[in-house]
Amino acid sequence: MQKRLGRQTVALERPSVILSHAAVGGKQEGEGPLAAYFDHLSDDSFFGEKTWEKGESAMQKMALSKALEKATLSPEDLDYILAGDLLNQCIGTSFGLRDFGIPFYGLYGACSTMGESLALGSLLIAGGFAERAGAMTSSHFCTAERQYRMPVPYGNQRTPTAQWTATASGCVILGAEGKGPRVTTVTCGKIVDKGVTDANNMGAAMAPAAYDSLAAHFAATGTGPKDYDLVLTGDLGVLGHQIVIDLFAQDGVEMGENYLDCGMLLYDIEKQDMHAGASGCGCSASVLCGYLLREMAEGRWKKLLFAPTGALLSPTSSFQGESVPGICHAVTIEA
Amino acid sequence: MQKRLGRQTVALERPSVILSHAAVGGKQEGEGPLAAYFDHLSDDSFFGEKTWEKGESAMQKMALSKALEKATLSPEDLDYILAGDLLNQCIGTSFGLRDFGIPFYGLYGACSTMGESLALGSLLIAGGFAERAGAMTSSHFCTAERQYRMPVPYGNQRTPTAQWTATASGCVILGAEGKGPRVTTVTCGKIVDKGVTDANNMGAAMAPAAYDSLAAHFAATGTGPKDYDLVLTGDLGVLGHQIVIDLFAQDGVEMGENYLDCGMLLYDIEKQDMHAGASGCGCSASVLCGYLLREMAEGRWKKLLFAPTGALLSPTSSFQGESVPGICHAVTIEA
Repeated sequence: MQKRLGRQTVALERPSVILSHAAVGGKQEGEGPLAAYFDHLSDDSFFGEKTWEKGESAMQKMALSKALEKATLSPEDLDYILAGDLLNQCIGTSFGLRDFGIPFYGLYGACSTMGESLALGSLLIAGGFAERAGAMTSSHFCTAERQYRMPVPYGNQRTPTAQWTATASGCVILGAEGKGPRVTTVTCGKIVDKGVTDANNMGAAMAPAAYDSLAAHFAATGTGPKDYDLVLTGDLGVLGHQIVIDLFAQDGVEMGENYLDCGMLLYDIEKQDMHAGASGCGCSASVLCGYLLREMAEGRWKKLLFAPTGALLSPTSSFQGESVPGICHAVTIEA
Repeated sequence: MQKRLGRQTVALERPSVILSHAAVGGKQEGEGPLAAYFDHLSDDSFFGEKTWEKGESAMQKMALSKALEKATLSPEDLDYILAGDLLNQCIGTSFGLRDFGIPFYGLYGACSTMGESLALGSLLIAGGFAERAGAMTSSHFCTAERQYRMPVPYGNQRTPTAQWTATASGCVILGAEGKGPRVTTVTCGKIVDKGVTDANNMGAAMAPAAYDSLAAHFAATGTGPKDYDLVLTGDLGVLGHQIVIDLFAQDGVEMGENYLDCGMLLYDIEKQDMHAGASGCGCSASVLCGYLLREMAEGRWKKLLFAPTGALLSPTSSFQGESVPGICHAVTIEA
């Protein structure tokens, strides 16, 4: 019925169709090179709400509403929505989705959530359990800084390896039928922990997970980096991107120029002073739901391998001396 | 292929089999009426670790290891594991699973996680995407108190409506084939928020979600409470349990004596001074993976409707004046 390629990868014989997608971003995202690809940009970091956390929920509401509108669908047309975010207890998602009345499977995959939600949403459709499903996530610079590091008004200094959490949300509406690019394979990641303890160097912590899932995907599907117009990790940034290249080079595999990281695309890193690049669930989600899928619709690329990574730490685990486990979920998207 | 009964419920034409199950608990659980049903009980709230958070991860390790052992399986035999917990960024799960190398979909469903993991695990198997999958969750009184309320050593007073977070973990191994009870239907919950703002009365906040999913399940399957040997919510406690009875009574549906709540079963509420009863992901998980499935194997019950609820709040959302949204995922388990 389904073609299972080894333990982690499924080739979908009933690929799900990306019926629509929407990206919402904040001020920095609006000043970056991908600004024109967003459906909505706000200079107000509160998105009209009284707190940043409520603002993050507002972003998810906007992203979902916009994606539904673009597909001429209403919330009742979705059988499921799969979503999560970085906030403690995923409140960005719970409060963002509260009023929609859509059956909801809550996910926690940290910054891999866009990959995880696309993977599970596609499997639910491929299994015949849904006609249409939403996949969504978000992050917010100010909620993430307050929670993981320091409240923004304290003016905390950032290390050179630090990344900038995107204030952004992305939503995809998947369907069993219709027109649009298709999700054709799904690779589920394993937790990979190589002992990195520097919570200000997420790229280094997550790169081994990206390598692990990408290598598993290549092996299962008998493909390599050159078989994709683009291979994209989610938010490894400049350092993590290079580590993935190095890890594959040790296997004699050249990742080549088609391997990019969304964290290197969202901002003009030099001009916007973003240190190692962008991060957060919203980084890969908004780059996918804005730039990548729009350019794909224009015919620029035919086959993407989208593989966002997540760092499965918390401030508490770091305070207790733990290293940073990572995970990476990958999906192939074909025009 | 699959029988979708309305928008929220799937009747599995390829039901998944519960190949094994294991429950781990702490001191209070060992002093309760279900003590004999646990696979492992520890008087040490640290479970041999240096912190309670690491202790919670240790519980998940034990529960998974024990469940694998009981099914004579190794970690390599699982295609997926679906799990999550209450801790910020679900670190109980990430660090508990880190060394197993099993493809992992991280979930956040708060105290509904045992229902959510059984639901998604069963769908992955029914869809032909997995031969075997694990479903697991945990909670820990001391990690939850520190995170949601006050560190335990402060001696915080508890309100009469408060519940006691179970220090427990439960794990189920699901298989496409084999002997054991079967998961035959899956109902995915919607977020339900009736405006309850008292974060010390989780039962009242979550009861409307239980009512919503149970009513959806009954309508979709054409069944009622009397068609099950037991209908079980997860951790509504004494107050929430009564609210569910009242809500159904308004519809003219009598829940009857077969409707129980795991939060009323785990402890001797009077003798152990547990106020409104037990709560936490580990409550429903350990009651299911200990008492319920063991007694089912003895032939005491043939058909259970297991419907744990989760409260999708965080301390931050409460501080910001938000009410408490709830969700409930339900599965039918038949001998």
